[in-house]
Amino acid sequence: MSEMNALAGITVLDLGQIYNGPYATFLMAMAGARVIKVESLTGETLRGRGATSSAAYPFAMLNQAKESITLNLKTDKGLQLFKQLVAKADIVLENFGPDTMTNLGLSAETLMAINPRLIYAAGSGYGRSGEHRDYLAMDITVQAMTGVMSTTGVDELPPMKAGPAISDFFGGIHLYSAVVTALLAREHSGKGAVLDMAMQDAVLPTLATVIGAYYYHDRNVPGRHGNRHPALTMAPYNVYPTRDGHVAIICVREGHWHALVKAIGQPELIDNEKFQTMHKRAESMQEVDAIVTAWTSVRDKLDVLDILQAAGVPTAAVRNVEELLNDSHLHERGMLRDVQHPLLGNIALPNSPINVAFGQVHEPALAPELGAQNLEVYGGLLGLSPEECAKLGEEGVI
Amino acid sequence: MSEMNALAGITVLDLGQIYNGPYATFLMAMAGARVIKVESLTGETLRGRGATSSAAYPFAMLNQAKESITLNLKTDKGLQLFKQLVAKADIVLENFGPDTMTNLGLSAETLMAINPRLIYAAGSGYGRSGEHRDYLAMDITVQAMTGVMSTTGVDELPPMKAGPAISDFFGGIHLYSAVVTALLAREHSGKGAVLDMAMQDAVLPTLATVIGAYYYHDRNVPGRHGNRHPALTMAPYNVYPTRDGHVAIICVREGHWHALVKAIGQPELIDNEKFQTMHKRAESMQEVDAIVTAWTSVRDKLDVLDILQAAGVPTAAVRNVEELLNDSHLHERGMLRDVQHPLLGNIALPNSPINVAFGQVHEPALAPELGAQNLEVYGGLLGLSPEECAKLGEEGVI
Repeated sequence: MSEMNALAGITVLDLGQIYNGPYATFLMAMAGARVIKVESLTGETLRGRGATSSAAYPFAMLNQAKESITLNLKTDKGLQLFKQLVAKADIVLENFGPDTMTNLGLSAETLMAINPRLIYAAGSGYGRSGEHRDYLAMDITVQAMTGVMSTTGVDELPPMKAGPAISDFFGGIHLYSAVVTALLAREHSGKGAVLDMAMQDAVLPTLATVIGAYYYHDRNVPGRHGNRHPALTMAPYNVYPTRDGHVAIICVREGHWHALVKAIGQPELIDNEKFQTMHKRAESMQEVDAIVTAWTSVRDKLDVLDILQAAGVPTAAVRNVEELLNDSHLHERGMLRDVQHPLLGNIALPNSPINVAFGQVHEPALAPELGAQNLEVYGGLLGLSPEECAKLGEEGVI
Repeated sequence: MSEMNALAGITVLDLGQIYNGPYATFLMAMAGARVIKVESLTGETLRGRGATSSAAYPFAMLNQAKESITLNLKTDKGLQLFKQLVAKADIVLENFGPDTMTNLGLSAETLMAINPRLIYAAGSGYGRSGEHRDYLAMDITVQAMTGVMSTTGVDELPPMKAGPAISDFFGGIHLYSAVVTALLAREHSGKGAVLDMAMQDAVLPTLATVIGAYYYHDRNVPGRHGNRHPALTMAPYNVYPTRDGHVAIICVREGHWHALVKAIGQPELIDNEKFQTMHKRAESMQEVDAIVTAWTSVRDKLDVLDILQAAGVPTAAVRNVEELLNDSHLHERGMLRDVQHPLLGNIALPNSPINVAFGQVHEPALAPELGAQNLEVYGGLLGLSPEECAKLGEEGVI
């Protein structure tokens, strides 16, 4: 990571748990920050689910390149040690409930009094202001509240969540963004900041098409149209069956449509009145989809992909997680790398998308064992002796 | 926006189109940058779909606080003017296909030779490296390729896209992140950077749970479990019917489960062997869901929300886009504001989630008319006279 040192010299106290906070600090660690994961004596929630649970992989993924210390914030000595660390840190990041830190005596105000250059970054479901601030939130509940579910799936079934943890990750990447924005501001102001990033706020803009459809159709709430365009104003725009799976095809320009009908051997459709504008194709959506389906359904998905991409039609194979993890493009690009993991065996771990954007591949340390850097951090950063650390361990402080 | 000036003094040449690029530059504009939207003579793609199309709202949303100039990059004079602007800019951002700018004679290398401090930020579906670099991509195709669809919906139906444009927006927010990271690096190095952000890379980490389920279940590809946990290792974790809609409920800790069964008047379940650990509840998922459903299905969703949140159970109402836009919490928090829009009437427009995180509400200018700032930019930044601008207009250059 020789050149990706944008955050070199930055020290982060990472109280993040599960996905939201830890994704933000993962990106910081990968950008060169020193990220010290501050865990309870039993470990952060995700780690706490057990080394052989289905949470083990996400933990391994999101805590690469971090250090781990244990700290019992329910003891006076623990609080004292945390404050001493804050004096040496640039960033404190947490995604507890909105009052957890204040109730511990570690409010943003208290910590910034110790260190006025501190950036205190809080992630939560709904934010620290507004009437819903105290609502408990997880990814699935934020998907419900933001309207994501109302627009996913089909009308015949209940509202459907998006499979991936999009609320957590939209929260996490916006939290990273806010922190780096605050670091940039600090370069000039010399001052820290308190950041209050809500998952709900971060997800809301992604509803743009659906909100557009709502206003466009005289404020009628759009239905759940499966894989079709939320406003039903575009065709082809769907997922189509193939012999061995599915493909996604979308024609956003006239040129795409022309390329498609040529590729499927029906160039005469270009001159067919019924399909001559996007508006007309959208009105004949069933027929358009039937034409495409007739051609895709007798072919293999990778053949459809090859033929239509070569013809200039935006097309994709619908891939499962195994196909994703084995994608040679992602490995070649450095977004995935194979790792021999002590617990999980041979797994593929992702790089930071931001590192990849900088063209930088490196092999970060695997997620640390609980408390692996206790001596290094309490010794190196706070000057405690190994004996003092051992005593703190015996007292249940670290 | 008095204090949210992290990007004050930064000038962005925004060639972004549709959602991906424009969301990144929207966040920059809202953080105080001067964002000059450089459009073809017929307008950026999204604008080009027409002022009364369903695209009008997304355009209005993503181009707040920006300036607009027209520029024909297919003329020599247009290219010359662009290069003159690059000399005065900090950032060039585009999300064309990977070779479009190079083919125009405006490669990153060419532009950085003009301005070595330039940050050249490119967004694309699959990135500029790797075997899939030339694949045409849109939100729906990236959802297909990244595995999002394979994990959304139910096994009985085809793979399903997430309703919102998550690939575009994950791409956009990561692009913003990469640019701000590069700006921070430039503070110390004095050098610009070339950034190659792929939507696919940005979406991949959100699959964490699904990848975890894959490795946990001996490398078997998980099915599509609707609203249940992708690894089926958690219950209650689902969407439940109510008299007037649906609610989402999730119990990640023992305490949540205890709070839930007390709130629904069945505290004796706490001592029921069958439900005493998360693992056991997951094994009795059908029964657990039936217990919850029996209670929710005879109540209204907002009552369920109130009762369970008060009891300490992570719960949400499944809301549609109209409920979202009218959410008083979001308005109170400053994430949404009502605007009288010249074309769209009374609409709600979002703030930047990052501004909200900084605690800053302001009322940005509405999205500009095509070329509204031609005189200001070509006059003010490049020193052209109104007559010269008029001549360029006649020549089809601006």
